[in-house]
Amino acid sequence: MKRSCEQHGRILPASENVVEPHGRRAFLKRSLAFAGGAVAAGAAGNGLAADAGRNLPPNIPEWSQRLGEAVGARGYGLPSRFEATVQRRRSPGLTRTDHSSVSFTPLQNLFGIITPTGLHFERHHAGIAEIDPEQHRLMVHGLVREPKIFSMDDLMRFPSVSRVHFIECGANSGMEWGNVAVPTVQYTHGMLGCSEFTGILLSTLLEEVGYDRQRARFILAEGADGASLTRTIPMEMALDDVLVVYGQNGEMLRPENGYPLRLLVPGVQGVSSVKWLRRLKVGDQPWNTREESLHYGDLMPDGSHRQYTWIQEAKSVITRPSGGQMILAQGYHEITGLAWSGRGKVKRVDVSSDGGRNWRTAALQEPVLSKSLTRFRLDWRWDGGPALLQSRVIDETGYVQPTISQLRAVRGTRSIYHNNAIKTWKVEASGEVSNVQIG
Amino acid sequence: MKRSCEQHGRILPASENVVEPHGRRAFLKRSLAFAGGAVAAGAAGNGLAADAGRNLPPNIPEWSQRLGEAVGARGYGLPSRFEATVQRRRSPGLTRTDHSSVSFTPLQNLFGIITPTGLHFERHHAGIAEIDPEQHRLMVHGLVREPKIFSMDDLMRFPSVSRVHFIECGANSGMEWGNVAVPTVQYTHGMLGCSEFTGILLSTLLEEVGYDRQRARFILAEGADGASLTRTIPMEMALDDVLVVYGQNGEMLRPENGYPLRLLVPGVQGVSSVKWLRRLKVGDQPWNTREESLHYGDLMPDGSHRQYTWIQEAKSVITRPSGGQMILAQGYHEITGLAWSGRGKVKRVDVSSDGGRNWRTAALQEPVLSKSLTRFRLDWRWDGGPALLQSRVIDETGYVQPTISQLRAVRGTRSIYHNNAIKTWKVEASGEVSNVQIG
Repeated sequence: MKRSCEQHGRILPASENVVEPHGRRAFLKRSLAFAGGAVAAGAAGNGLAADAGRNLPPNIPEWSQRLGEAVGARGYGLPSRFEATVQRRRSPGLTRTDHSSVSFTPLQNLFGIITPTGLHFERHHAGIAEIDPEQHRLMVHGLVREPKIFSMDDLMRFPSVSRVHFIECGANSGMEWGNVAVPTVQYTHGMLGCSEFTGILLSTLLEEVGYDRQRARFILAEGADGASLTRTIPMEMALDDVLVVYGQNGEMLRPENGYPLRLLVPGVQGVSSVKWLRRLKVGDQPWNTREESLHYGDLMPDGSHRQYTWIQEAKSVITRPSGGQMILAQGYHEITGLAWSGRGKVKRVDVSSDGGRNWRTAALQEPVLSKSLTRFRLDWRWDGGPALLQSRVIDETGYVQPTISQLRAVRGTRSIYHNNAIKTWKVEASGEVSNVQIG
Repeated sequence: MKRSCEQHGRILPASENVVEPHGRRAFLKRSLAFAGGAVAAGAAGNGLAADAGRNLPPNIPEWSQRLGEAVGARGYGLPSRFEATVQRRRSPGLTRTDHSSVSFTPLQNLFGIITPTGLHFERHHAGIAEIDPEQHRLMVHGLVREPKIFSMDDLMRFPSVSRVHFIECGANSGMEWGNVAVPTVQYTHGMLGCSEFTGILLSTLLEEVGYDRQRARFILAEGADGASLTRTIPMEMALDDVLVVYGQNGEMLRPENGYPLRLLVPGVQGVSSVKWLRRLKVGDQPWNTREESLHYGDLMPDGSHRQYTWIQEAKSVITRPSGGQMILAQGYHEITGLAWSGRGKVKRVDVSSDGGRNWRTAALQEPVLSKSLTRFRLDWRWDGGPALLQSRVIDETGYVQPTISQLRAVRGTRSIYHNNAIKTWKVEASGEVSNVQIG
């Protein structure tokens, strides 16, 4: 259906303008009064005429006239063929190889806060390791009383926890630092996903091997993929809410999400949540490995380089209407999007339709969870004129999402990582929605 | 991996028995002290030796030595080939045709509360309708001011909500009424799923068409599949939390879950959540359609037939260890399972390992949501002797899940529907876990 198309969000024609009333129900009633065809006009084509008591010939759709595919025909189900355009996508030319690259989540097509696992963004450094779980091992060693090697069966036996958390790549929105505007929210913010993860608290494993309480200050995590990706995790995080994860959205991790085992460092840039986890080493100082000294740092205007800036600060984005979509009608629309903070819970999201001059507070989908995506929604009536749509999150620490100007004033424009600026979508009088950089 | 196998849950050998200490951490420390191979013994086979500072030859697994599949190779991801046995399954001979049949969710393999959409159970009456969303229409008519027909584009424009709810078939655990014991929790309780659903409050659509506030008492919902399945919904439910749903776990519904539109009646037997929804009629009395007079009622011991017993009362089940699995070691195990109530939130889950003589209270996974699955967990130490594992839920109304004897005393053994009895899994000294009917 057109709604799912990459470039267009189709919305039916509307009635004439009405004065905006008070209250959501009244607002909706007036703005949406046009919605839905009258029965007489619309019934002939869809077999509903007889039911409506009108004298139109019945025209039963073919799927109501025959048996469909048998129950259990698919032991594992897939999306409808009519949704085939809803896909993860690479950005051509973004990386030199397809094995160290990115695919983006189609946020413009998604609902709620759970990211369908099959659409979760990818960022790999040497492609997707395909691991036999029977052969996979996790070693925990270093400053410990007794280094140990665990099989997957060992790990599945530990006490488990399940928690909903987002994962955002540190480079998400990286193309927005300059003015290289990519068209859609899939490319501006699509290195983002949110899942119910299941695994073991890292603190449980550290207790198991008896970490050195005097000297242990950092953990090194290493992946079993061809890149042997390594990241340093501070001990305070490791003992707090870091998880060693095998389950995602109810089932075992998918290969591209680290099957059969990954780290999950809630609220921290995705690269720290090492996939295909094979090794955890306890040490007394950061390791300064390749992926933490050469990459994933912040290049500042004075040429200095900030390292270990790992927390993903509060950020939000409107996913509908968003860049590349087309609003075909004046009147009522729901503005919806996502907000999150690496520091805890989202406290409030404000939405502006005039580029930040006036703000209204959006409704937050319950439950609001810590270090999770939060869906926000706001009733909006498009008057057919140009509009500049923005969202701004405030998290539970009181941190306010900055404008791009505020961010550039401190960080310059040569950064790649940690761009959490307010995003603007421009609505033209034509209804076209595009990516602009203002504020 | 063997853990995922239909018949076995494999767990590594344990050390000798230890006295059970106090507190979860101490308990775990003693019970799990054996877990994980010593580094020297285990390192040779997994390439971790050099890292551990031992003088064993490195043996790097093949997946660490080469590039894996490219990023974005799959626009839509799938489970690992090593998880191929984790599937929905039909129960051979349960139904006369494969088009009006059931496939069961593999609860024994799942984590947390979100059911992977591809593994959500199926119950269809005429197979899976394959509907073109551009052609699909929903008519709302009957005792309304203005009957209307909505396209999917119309519906996507209404204010949306997302909520996590379970769907349980009214016939779930139906094979447990007598003593026809099926082997696994997939067959005893697998007509059960839980998802984050997105859609429109039915009350919003009823406002839109102007339902008759004096006369409207019931809604008829009709599906667009070959069965034209119809169900009566009382108006109080319709105006409370019933949803007209298009999204499930972040994406559009799958075909077998009602793509592109279904009803969701939270807390009520699944058949009321009409899939492929095409029509809603407002009326002043129940319709007594085929699927509500002939089926989905409760046949009582005196031969009478209770109709419209639609609420799914509080129920729970241990999913691990469960029937068909094998416990290979004494010592620590986590007992985990699911609890839910059609009346609201789960308040408490108790677990017994001696067939109901002694109970301990399990930990509930947060957040506990209304009319949603709730994951419970309890530390357990298996002493190698026979055990009878049971769980018992109490919901926020104070309702206590009954024993099968209590249920049979009222309902007899000729029912098919609404069996919410406490489930017992028997653990033999051999470690074999099987389905038994006691209590």
